[in-house]
Amino acid sequence: MATDDDLNVTEDSALGGARSVGLVETNTWTFADPPLELDCGRTLSPVTIAYETYGALNEARDNAVLIFHALSGDAHVAGYHTATDRKPGWWDIMVGPGKAFDTDQYCVICANVIGGCKGSTGPASINPETGRPYGPDFPIVTVGDMVKAQKRLIDHLGIDRLLAVAGGSMGGMLALDWAVRYPDRVASVLAIATSARLSAQGIAFNEVGRQAIMADPHWAEGRYYDGESPRAGLAIARMVGHITYLSDEQMHVKFGRRLQDRETFGYDFRTEFQVESYLRYQGTSFVKRFDANSYLYITKAIDYFDLANGHHSLVEAFRDVRAEFLVLSFTSDWLFPTGQAIELVRAAQANGIQTTFMEIPSPHGHDSFLLPNPQQEQAVAGFLAKVHRQNGASSRRAC
Amino acid sequence: MATDDDLNVTEDSALGGARSVGLVETNTWTFADPPLELDCGRTLSPVTIAYETYGALNEARDNAVLIFHALSGDAHVAGYHTATDRKPGWWDIMVGPGKAFDTDQYCVICANVIGGCKGSTGPASINPETGRPYGPDFPIVTVGDMVKAQKRLIDHLGIDRLLAVAGGSMGGMLALDWAVRYPDRVASVLAIATSARLSAQGIAFNEVGRQAIMADPHWAEGRYYDGESPRAGLAIARMVGHITYLSDEQMHVKFGRRLQDRETFGYDFRTEFQVESYLRYQGTSFVKRFDANSYLYITKAIDYFDLANGHHSLVEAFRDVRAEFLVLSFTSDWLFPTGQAIELVRAAQANGIQTTFMEIPSPHGHDSFLLPNPQQEQAVAGFLAKVHRQNGASSRRAC
Repeated sequence: MATDDDLNVTEDSALGGARSVGLVETNTWTFADPPLELDCGRTLSPVTIAYETYGALNEARDNAVLIFHALSGDAHVAGYHTATDRKPGWWDIMVGPGKAFDTDQYCVICANVIGGCKGSTGPASINPETGRPYGPDFPIVTVGDMVKAQKRLIDHLGIDRLLAVAGGSMGGMLALDWAVRYPDRVASVLAIATSARLSAQGIAFNEVGRQAIMADPHWAEGRYYDGESPRAGLAIARMVGHITYLSDEQMHVKFGRRLQDRETFGYDFRTEFQVESYLRYQGTSFVKRFDANSYLYITKAIDYFDLANGHHSLVEAFRDVRAEFLVLSFTSDWLFPTGQAIELVRAAQANGIQTTFMEIPSPHGHDSFLLPNPQQEQAVAGFLAKVHRQNGASSRRAC
Repeated sequence: MATDDDLNVTEDSALGGARSVGLVETNTWTFADPPLELDCGRTLSPVTIAYETYGALNEARDNAVLIFHALSGDAHVAGYHTATDRKPGWWDIMVGPGKAFDTDQYCVICANVIGGCKGSTGPASINPETGRPYGPDFPIVTVGDMVKAQKRLIDHLGIDRLLAVAGGSMGGMLALDWAVRYPDRVASVLAIATSARLSAQGIAFNEVGRQAIMADPHWAEGRYYDGESPRAGLAIARMVGHITYLSDEQMHVKFGRRLQDRETFGYDFRTEFQVESYLRYQGTSFVKRFDANSYLYITKAIDYFDLANGHHSLVEAFRDVRAEFLVLSFTSDWLFPTGQAIELVRAAQANGIQTTFMEIPSPHGHDSFLLPNPQQEQAVAGFLAKVHRQNGASSRRAC
């Protein structure tokens, strides 16, 4: 036992240990014809999709789980790109051998959304009509458009029916949209810390972030790729976002009114409190890895999202859904509060959709779904195992 | 009766009717010697204080109520400056003949805080050392400094002991500070939608607003008074603030996901949802009436505020307080939630301070205290009447 532990420790210090997917890489796939028809009425072509896969697709091709990332995420869910990476993928705690999304059992796939800046076609991509970055000429994309693009990828990978679609926050919106849009193509939905529609308060916070970016002179109406980027504006947008991702309680515990690197008030406008230092750091580090135009486009897609669009009601939107639901919310999440999860659950149940709902106690606000939480892990693992038993018996024999 | 109603309507359409203080004006008073000693170690002189008074000081000079305004407020609490004013002062619903702060009974005083931009000395004032606006050379002021400046005004007005100090939000902080700082100079405190200290989340929101202002190139390190002002940055700061002043529930009722001046999505970055239009309007209208540097200085003062500063605890801070407390919070106020009011109440009660506490049901978030609310009005009126009976018997005879 001691030897096993030692081995684990050794492995942990390298590439995440036995429960890590280890070294992974991002793949890209491009389609051009037919072009992607967008909700705004325009088309997009060519469309490149950056994606990663972990675990193996079984012979029956029915053990695939498609995970969708949130606003600032990417295709790199788990593992490491190089042996010297300081951090693994964004949901490494949930995806790997023996983890909740068990890559010994499932083939896990994650793709960067279109409109993003992590390998999939977005506003920083080259516009084939001009040979220059799209910038503001990139068409507005919706959550539905993002889903339609990823559906093409799933077709390309030869997967008829996903075992599950899953995601937190915006990722949960994509999962729900998939279930409504392609009812025959998925057996289950894991909708975590999400909603059937963004609230007015959510739109308001997104709008402040967009205004901050667009007020930055370096934004230059979105045509900044040859010069300096609107870093100050994007940093402010990220700061606003970060406040909404944490809970008041957690901020109190984590920072309180403690001062940063000083014993007494400095009586100036430099960083004074730890919470200011934290926010400034989050803002300035984000601008190194994210494109401001993508922030505009993706927040806009989130604002537009309303599962009831094109239907008389949310209940009606779920009418053709055949997937089973797992809906999770977190007690301290005030951006996507439990009431919104319950709205989802009620509409699903009104359609006879088999739905498991759990409000998980956590002090970490909206970010809870990204942090280690045994209840979330057990709920996801148990739900997937059940769905797999119900839907994948033949394939397990085939393996 | 019909005639009376008609008369009231006629009066209402002019200057607020019989329950309005009618036409009022802002006074200023300037002191220079001794200079005001500030918490930061610097001094300020001369100091001009803009203030308004309503009602009459009685012979015993013991019916004075000092109201403190919040972040973006001013000395103009009630009534109208001109016969064509579209709106009365910021708390006109609460201050006037027969209203909660009954100007038939009390002499109500309100002064603009130092650091502000509504007539009292602030960063836009002329620095006597340079003959130019202070800008960033204005010293950092605290809530305590604001209170010390207003104490000079109260001395100047010949008032030994105030019947009450009162305020909502930052105004409540000033009221509490007064009670701790000048225990012999006030009989009661009305602390509404406020706290003994700003939370980490509150600091975080303020910091985002400051960063937005300071990121605006027109801010020019605070020396913008000869040129364009940082309007875009200040507008964003105000937008962030406004989200925190409303409740999620109220935003849902007021705006929901309704579109602004269009039937379907426009698929662009112009105003789409009503909540965006509302926020943009709040931002752009604010910059016409407020100085960006004052926003920096006043939010900084709010951040610094902690009644326990210089004491071992909040309980100890209240040790010498002699005033009676009325503490009001509102159910949907998430910027100054009820838990913070209860913290105040507990510390007061631990010192034997007679304290009345009420959590008032309201869907309007932090802004609740600025809106008509019979429970707030009755609580304030009843509390003041009681304190007046206990403390002003002699004066009433003198009248």
